Amino acid sequence: MASSAPARPTGTSSTPVPLKWVGPLRISSPALGGTQEISVPLATYETPLWPSVGRGARVSTMVEEGIRAVVVDERMTRSILLEADDAATALAAWRRLEDSREKLQAVVATSSRFARLIDMHVQIVGDLLFLRLELTTGDASGHNMVTLAGERLMDHILATIPGVRYVSPSGNYCIDKKASAVNGILGRGKNVVTEILLPREVVERRLRTSAAAVEKLNVRKNLIGSILAGSLRSANAHYANMLLGFYLATGQDAANIVEGSQGVTRAEDRDGDLYFSCTLPNVIVGSVGNGKGLPEVDEALRLLGCREEREPGENGRRLAVLAAATVLCGELSLLAAQTNQGELMRSHVVLERGAGRGDRVQAPPAQDPVS
Amino acid sequence: MASSAPARPTGTSSTPVPLKWVGPLRISSPALGGTQEISVPLATYETPLWPSVGRGARVSTMVEEGIRAVVVDERMTRSILLEADDAATALAAWRRLEDSREKLQAVVATSSRFARLIDMHVQIVGDLLFLRLELTTGDASGHNMVTLAGERLMDHILATIPGVRYVSPSGNYCIDKKASAVNGILGRGKNVVTEILLPREVVERRLRTSAAAVEKLNVRKNLIGSILAGSLRSANAHYANMLLGFYLATGQDAANIVEGSQGVTRAEDRDGDLYFSCTLPNVIVGSVGNGKGLPEVDEALRLLGCREEREPGENGRRLAVLAAATVLCGELSLLAAQTNQGELMRSHVVLERGAGRGDRVQAPPAQDPVS
Amino acid sequence: MASSAPARPTGTSSTPVPLKWVGPLRISSPALGGTQEISVPLATYETPLWPSVGRGARVSTMVEEGIRAVVVDERMTRSILLEADDAATALAAWRRLEDSREKLQAVVATSSRFARLIDMHVQIVGDLLFLRLELTTGDASGHNMVTLAGERLMDHILATIPGVRYVSPSGNYCIDKKASAVNGILGRGKNVVTEILLPREVVERRLRTSAAAVEKLNVRKNLIGSILAGSLRSANAHYANMLLGFYLATGQDAANIVEGSQGVTRAEDRDGDLYFSCTLPNVIVGSVGNGKGLPEVDEALRLLGCREEREPGENGRRLAVLAAATVLCGELSLLAAQTNQGELMRSHVVLERGAGRGDRVQAPPAQDPVS
Amino acid sequence: MASSAPARPTGTSSTPVPLKWVGPLRISSPALGGTQEISVPLATYETPLWPSVGRGARVSTMVEEGIRAVVVDERMTRSILLEADDAATALAAWRRLEDSREKLQAVVATSSRFARLIDMHVQIVGDLLFLRLELTTGDASGHNMVTLAGERLMDHILATIPGVRYVSPSGNYCIDKKASAVNGILGRGKNVVTEILLPREVVERRLRTSAAAVEKLNVRKNLIGSILAGSLRSANAHYANMLLGFYLATGQDAANIVEGSQGVTRAEDRDGDLYFSCTLPNVIVGSVGNGKGLPEVDEALRLLGCREEREPGENGRRLAVLAAATVLCGELSLLAAQTNQGELMRSHVVLERGAGRGDRVQAPPAQDPVS
Repeated sequence: MASSAPARPTGTSSTPVPLKWVGPLRISSPALGGTQEISVPLATYETPLWPSVGRGARVSTMVEEGIRAVVVDERMTRSILLEADDAATALAAWRRLEDSREKLQAVVATSSRFARLIDMHVQIVGDLLFLRLELTTGDASGHNMVTLAGERLMDHILATIPGVRYVSPSGNYCIDKKASAVNGILGRGKNVVTEILLPREVVERRLRTSAAAVEKLNVRKNLIGSILAGSLRSANAHYANMLLGFYLATGQDAANIVEGSQGVTRAEDRDGDLYFSCTLPNVIVGSVGNGKGLPEVDEALRLLGCREEREPGENGRRLAVLAAATVLCGELSLLAAQTNQGELMRSHVVLERGAGRGDRVQAPPAQDPVS
Repeated sequence: MASSAPARPTGTSSTPVPLKWVGPLRISSPALGGTQEISVPLATYETPLWPSVGRGARVSTMVEEGIRAVVVDERMTRSILLEADDAATALAAWRRLEDSREKLQAVVATSSRFARLIDMHVQIVGDLLFLRLELTTGDASGHNMVTLAGERLMDHILATIPGVRYVSPSGNYCIDKKASAVNGILGRGKNVVTEILLPREVVERRLRTSAAAVEKLNVRKNLIGSILAGSLRSANAHYANMLLGFYLATGQDAANIVEGSQGVTRAEDRDGDLYFSCTLPNVIVGSVGNGKGLPEVDEALRLLGCREEREPGENGRRLAVLAAATVLCGELSLLAAQTNQGELMRSHVVLERGAGRGDRVQAPPAQDPVS
Repeated sequence: MASSAPARPTGTSSTPVPLKWVGPLRISSPALGGTQEISVPLATYETPLWPSVGRGARVSTMVEEGIRAVVVDERMTRSILLEADDAATALAAWRRLEDSREKLQAVVATSSRFARLIDMHVQIVGDLLFLRLELTTGDASGHNMVTLAGERLMDHILATIPGVRYVSPSGNYCIDKKASAVNGILGRGKNVVTEILLPREVVERRLRTSAAAVEKLNVRKNLIGSILAGSLRSANAHYANMLLGFYLATGQDAANIVEGSQGVTRAEDRDGDLYFSCTLPNVIVGSVGNGKGLPEVDEALRLLGCREEREPGENGRRLAVLAAATVLCGELSLLAAQTNQGELMRSHVVLERGAGRGDRVQAPPAQDPVS
Repeated sequence: MASSAPARPTGTSSTPVPLKWVGPLRISSPALGGTQEISVPLATYETPLWPSVGRGARVSTMVEEGIRAVVVDERMTRSILLEADDAATALAAWRRLEDSREKLQAVVATSSRFARLIDMHVQIVGDLLFLRLELTTGDASGHNMVTLAGERLMDHILATIPGVRYVSPSGNYCIDKKASAVNGILGRGKNVVTEILLPREVVERRLRTSAAAVEKLNVRKNLIGSILAGSLRSANAHYANMLLGFYLATGQDAANIVEGSQGVTRAEDRDGDLYFSCTLPNVIVGSVGNGKGLPEVDEALRLLGCREEREPGENGRRLAVLAAATVLCGELSLLAAQTNQGELMRSHVVLERGAGRGDRVQAPPAQDPVS
């Protein structure tokens, strides 16, 4: 027999995750309406992350435009799964769906006033039909919105197209919170590109390294090392750390760091200056939705300027740009530190002593020393 | 010029993530010393996760052994990165390292009394040498332990092996918090296999589905759908959701859900009974380390029975088994729900009404309806 | 000093690869104008492949429609690579290109009368712009056609869009002859789905197995086993073997078996009958182009009915369907054999004896016994 | 009814694939017993490959050591697949197998005098046990040898270990001829690293480019471009082309170019000189076995010096080194060409004219212009 269960708390409580505002970062982006200096909140148990991102943030303020950020694309997706009489029937169904986008748009409109169908992709595998629905979802990350739209479309398809049958409201060709290639190729969430050009003296004095050293390390570790590990569309040091901290602080569904982690860092020595760029194809955030009403989250969103009256989608894009710029700060700081033998371990010792004394930490910082 | 920065909070605060204890689950495992019934804490903004896991938990108590769980492997890894004079020198260095494991073990021992080198793997790419160090790390998840051991070994190698030079304390062949294949193949964290055999009547009455339907959906969605999405060693519906909730509640470095999400669900119809299994090769948890001293986390670990005096590693394995069993509960519940057209959306509406009223939810539950 | 080079043949000669016509297969496809029985040539050093495919072919003739095949999509691709002043400039360039498809179409038309631009996709990574051009290419596989079209478009872009510069005529986002996900998701070559429904008695008497056994093996080996291996959009036993033999016999650029190998086998027990399907998203073949004028190749294409006067593209699609149906035959035969312990090794012994005597082989055949 | 089948040839014939000896290449390798100049045969329908590889070969002779090549590892693998009573039983079986390697070695020895078990790896997924057997196989590529050894071990395991049952002689964790990560990480075939350091003047005058330009292109195309394409352990321009030509000319099972294509090109500007390296973890070749007895193949192997009386394995390693060095030549030539806008298309026009006249081609060559 099973041993008896220990007593356990009932009802709902909460786990407080340590949070600190880091910055300010200087960011230039159409999504911010120009150039801004702004601090960002990071909730994490791995507190060395704070000074690490902080160092990157300080560096961003030493360049006129700071971190430049553009939102290349945005969409949320759901793939419904149908079974057809055979592959030919599946193909015929797909062609019919392609030809009736206007009607499908109308069906989607019944599910939400923010949902809009912007594209569809298909995979036919034998007699199975995976239909990837791609929608804009206003300021919401949109998980529930695409699910509801998907169910409505499923009902419509089953009612109007012969020879197809229900299999699942999701066929994993969406794909949510799994390591895959489709989200980077077809898009899911906000695709944000960030970049900064750091003058040689900033690289040398503030990051204690050189553009050439960072470029070389990035190629060998983030590109080649990741390739050897059998990575998939992942070429970075630790995007997941920054995304997790930012997502938790702003009430996001942080399990989306799985695809969020899949981005590409570039570093190039440009005549001694450092071109540094982080491309994050799958920043999945919203300024409304589950969790956003909690007081601490609401306050964080307000301080980030994401509670303003704006066109639908603008608050969401703003949030995505802030998340991506935060990633750049942490990525830059860690790579710079790793170019110098022993720096990470030394800074960690300092950080831990500081933490032990409750002091502010001045040392060259780095989170998880060797992600 | 940049617009002025808004005021922002200074000092350290925290973000409270909603938490609920779910269960009990019935679990049989050598890591638990037999069969136990035990509840688990889930911290998440996506509160429909609670009843979803809860339904799976209830089902687990209807089988004598409940969920069976075994820890197949455990290790934590760090890959240091060196540059050699050429590939032949890199190969010679590797062969020398292979022949001096005893000495390397002694070096590792100077870094921590818990760290023990259990294996090494290498990748030689041109004149670069990626050395993947694999250690046991007691009850800690071991990120810092392997980093420190790696630095000590790096120093030792640089001092004793000619023709090699420092590149980085981490070469991303570890690999930490990135979507990759290496962690599943060579191991990182605890590799936990969970399984349960559910009698036909439990499947029909409690999950309102059939073994045949769950098997078919699992093949089409979790296996084929994930393959189409270009997934990497990922064949499940939503492991990341349960891992995130469990990791946050127990003070883990939750960014490790990236590799944690990469596991395989199996479902087989065995004469009407349902064989259901979740294999999680990369459960990265510890009962000691960063974050574990926070009062809420400490209390959660205590209630989970992971604060006992045991052999080093036992509390960590216990924690891993509990995490993995929690995953199985949520996975089973969601798959069962998706076999029935419309069930997820209906249950969501009920859940949201329930949440609005603050009521207990009785309805067939499901988290993110169509992950 | 280097040792002296051995004498070596000069001029051009050839390597004769053993070839056998296998079949007939029975195939139903719009690309064949209905149902046909037709034999196919396989050139290979691995001669056990012949009886293996032959067994599958015989089975196909026992079903009225035989193997049903549909061409879901066709295109050939090339990704040119440009560098922009920054990410915003890259994005602006992309939007301008999207808005000028008609003009781009006209540029493409100058490169070939068969080339037609049907779609474009983009990846922006920092200040780099990867532009994936997607064309139909008539009866040619189209490698050279897309390259020439790409160069013309590159010239046009550099002349008309400010702020972008040449990097490469190919940026590997095409992607040619590499293991990737993009070709399966966005398409490259002909996407062909084949399927057959085999009555129980055919499965039992001709394949000496059962639908249930083949389904189970397919899930465990082709789906789960491949996933464990860290495979990418690959879930089959040995597509590459059949494609290589068919490609060599018909003068194709057989290095495209790399992406050709990435397809999905499905097997389902349908009340004792066996539903069996092979989906090949990347069959890259042409009936014209390099190698097609060699006498043996020309004769093979003629016998396959791919030298007829037809609309551009029809001969190419016909070829793709024949290739894919051949794959199904070999895949079915091998999987059936592997359900029975020891069958493969026994048949191999028989085959080798048969080969030694120059006899026809009657035994249950299987190529590379356990691919 | 099916239309009647066209007549088709009976019996065995052959397809002659055009072949040319290219070179000589200068290569230094322990596998060659030092430095040698040697030409290599390439059988291909894509004849522009010849001058492309030829250009790389010429360059290799301008450096004292030429191309340096080392064999880092060699093994051939087969994963048998078993089903156990449950995961715990699977784990117990695995531990028992680990503890009885000597006995397993003896079983392997009964299958072939060349087969030797050097390692095993396992994957346990629910109650399934994938056992990856790793053997050295003398001068054979070893497909059949590992299959036979696997069957013997399977028989032994089923006879001696309780609670496990037969599933398949191959569970795809081997993995053969599929795009995967496991072969690069655990090894399959010969793992060969090649490298060359080209003086600035050779780069400029013979390749008409610069080390900086090649480095930059390699990072952007082969590394980043491939990553964007969702590639798996693939970072090169066209390894598959050279491997196919070499494999066909030497009687190899050329379907193994699938995993052969998965390698990493490095290019670094070292003070104006070009460090260039190709790492090919999965060169699967043999100097004995299927196809090797055909007169043309036998002659090619003899001319390559792979028909000598040597220790088992030496002829095979020699062949692998020659294959890998050939890859380097073609890779170098194509990358150099792509750094210059328009060079590939111009050279192609020249090549085609040359081909039309039957002339020798002098122009800067490049195969498939933009792989």
